[in-house]
Amino acid sequence: MTAAPGSVGIVQPQRASFGDPLRLSSGATLPAFELMYETYGTLNAERSNAILVCHALNASHHVAGEYAGQPASEGWWDNMVGPGKPVDTARFFAVGVNNLGGCFGSTEPASINPATGKPWGSDFPIVTVEDWVDAQARLADHLGIERFAAVMGGSLGGMQALSWAIRYPERIGNALVIAAAPNLSAQNIAFNEVARAAILTDPDFHDGHYYAYGVKPVRGLRIARMVGHITYISDEQMGEKFGRTLREGLNYSFAPEFEIESYLRYQAEKFSEYFDANTYLRITKALDYFDPALVTGGNLTRALAPASCRFLVISFTTDWRFSPARAREIVKALVDNRRDVSYAEILAPHGHDAFLLDTPQYHAVVRSYLERTLR
Amino acid sequence: MTAAPGSVGIVQPQRASFGDPLRLSSGATLPAFELMYETYGTLNAERSNAILVCHALNASHHVAGEYAGQPASEGWWDNMVGPGKPVDTARFFAVGVNNLGGCFGSTEPASINPATGKPWGSDFPIVTVEDWVDAQARLADHLGIERFAAVMGGSLGGMQALSWAIRYPERIGNALVIAAAPNLSAQNIAFNEVARAAILTDPDFHDGHYYAYGVKPVRGLRIARMVGHITYISDEQMGEKFGRTLREGLNYSFAPEFEIESYLRYQAEKFSEYFDANTYLRITKALDYFDPALVTGGNLTRALAPASCRFLVISFTTDWRFSPARAREIVKALVDNRRDVSYAEILAPHGHDAFLLDTPQYHAVVRSYLERTLR
Repeated sequence: MTAAPGSVGIVQPQRASFGDPLRLSSGATLPAFELMYETYGTLNAERSNAILVCHALNASHHVAGEYAGQPASEGWWDNMVGPGKPVDTARFFAVGVNNLGGCFGSTEPASINPATGKPWGSDFPIVTVEDWVDAQARLADHLGIERFAAVMGGSLGGMQALSWAIRYPERIGNALVIAAAPNLSAQNIAFNEVARAAILTDPDFHDGHYYAYGVKPVRGLRIARMVGHITYISDEQMGEKFGRTLREGLNYSFAPEFEIESYLRYQAEKFSEYFDANTYLRITKALDYFDPALVTGGNLTRALAPASCRFLVISFTTDWRFSPARAREIVKALVDNRRDVSYAEILAPHGHDAFLLDTPQYHAVVRSYLERTLR
Repeated sequence: MTAAPGSVGIVQPQRASFGDPLRLSSGATLPAFELMYETYGTLNAERSNAILVCHALNASHHVAGEYAGQPASEGWWDNMVGPGKPVDTARFFAVGVNNLGGCFGSTEPASINPATGKPWGSDFPIVTVEDWVDAQARLADHLGIERFAAVMGGSLGGMQALSWAIRYPERIGNALVIAAAPNLSAQNIAFNEVARAAILTDPDFHDGHYYAYGVKPVRGLRIARMVGHITYISDEQMGEKFGRTLREGLNYSFAPEFEIESYLRYQAEKFSEYFDANTYLRITKALDYFDPALVTGGNLTRALAPASCRFLVISFTTDWRFSPARAREIVKALVDNRRDVSYAEILAPHGHDAFLLDTPQYHAVVRSYLERTLR
């Protein structure tokens, strides 16, 4: 079995079960839960080299490597995590985890609700970034990791890293907050609301209990994905990649005519095949709710005061979902608290999705930060 | 009957019937058609003071004034058109027209198809900006207007003004192209495609023949409107107006919690009550198709070469749907052709919707342009 150069190779997901109830932000309690996770590299004897990699909206615990016998099963951040890569698995022990409510094996709306013996469906509680972080902390306990060398993530993953820094300051050495924001803008929330409205009003949604009907609200999920997709890519990148290119010619019908149309439809179709609508609803809510400064009257500096770790904050010039200006709000609040913070604004044409790509300057910043601070 | 100061007062829509077939861009032919229109002010003896006002996506022939016995029935551009207003009806004879395929009384998908005796539904042809302009030219003939002093409009209306200048150079003295673009970007098309996908996949759409089923694809139409609405408002304006303000508090459910959510839902609900889904599909297609430079290999300068009228081009700083950069493409192409063009980039926080508002600088520019060039 020959792995691609720099790949962690064949990996296997693992499952951890937690019997103690988890109290959630909403006030609800999960009596017990499971988390799917993967690890890459080796935890050293001092247990000091662990890096938690948090995922964003549509990803999972499968961060790096591939599954045996499954071609094209590379992890979603395989370019970032592996031997010789910025998160060098020759030095670090990286951990990927599917968040609570996610649809890749962790306890989720499609799981069986012990109270009813049926899938949770819409009875699955709304979970927040803070709930995810609390669940991840339980996983850390399970793995014998008292303190992460770093917690990192892009987009919603970056928000988890930020939340870790506030919530468990003694358990995190560095927070890598990439392509994130201190909270969602009204426009961000508006896009999420369109996505949710599309799912909630799909007749196949059945109030969230569609599992029992043998259907999935794929129409709504496709629309949700299309809306989201547009916000992940910069206007200029979409222009360069698709422009006004036609597939064949004008056909004066509502069939896809422009390349951008068929691209969006194809991506939406693929997404709706593997993603769960109840999960999508909840993850967009977790995004909307994230706002550490809510409890400090909107004062982000005070909200970040508990954080004591070092920070690397990265933004991308053409990211219009979470613009550099939003990242700089985080940086400013950290500087106001006299925290050790590095900030890089990466010139990249791709928009928000840039955090998943391997722009050399971006990867060099992550690499050198980790080399410098974690030796 | 006292009209508000500066209002044209009580108005009445009129209907014009055209018996000659209209050949459309798609190759299809409409055997006959009707157009709803309104006029404001008096056509002078020389018939030289007529201004055609073209509407954008969701408006109509009802540009100014109000309907007898109908409170709050003001026209959509009432702040622009009226006695003493920038389009001063004491001097000008303004004409508003509902475009072909629109859903306010002109021949449209809900009209009876003479070939079947049933509503056209999805058999109604796809119409383009050029088709609208050709139909408007027929209306001009009907009204005895050989040449418009000006053709004006915002957004899609501005595209019609631009098309008039190219298509009927001898019949237009001035083109006022406001908040428009020479064509849609890939991102613009992508947003339209989401809107269409929402309508087309609504089970109540019935392949466009929903009239026969006594239903309307309101779910899809609402989503379409929500997506559109987000693009009409600037991020900063949405932030100032709604921010992250909650209606009551977090309720950890999918009911509207943030003000922006209930605003979007309310607007979408209202829109879905009065607008027709087949019309929405066609108008977004007309937007996507508009591209005068398609026939000149992408060369906008050559595309605009036939235009001989004077131009006023206006853009708004925070318009991210049709940004100032897009308007400047039009200006550049006109300058390259050595045409008489004035350009104003208006500092306005509202985004695309600014073209409907009465920002003083904006209205002053239109007013002084019309006073200067049409005396």
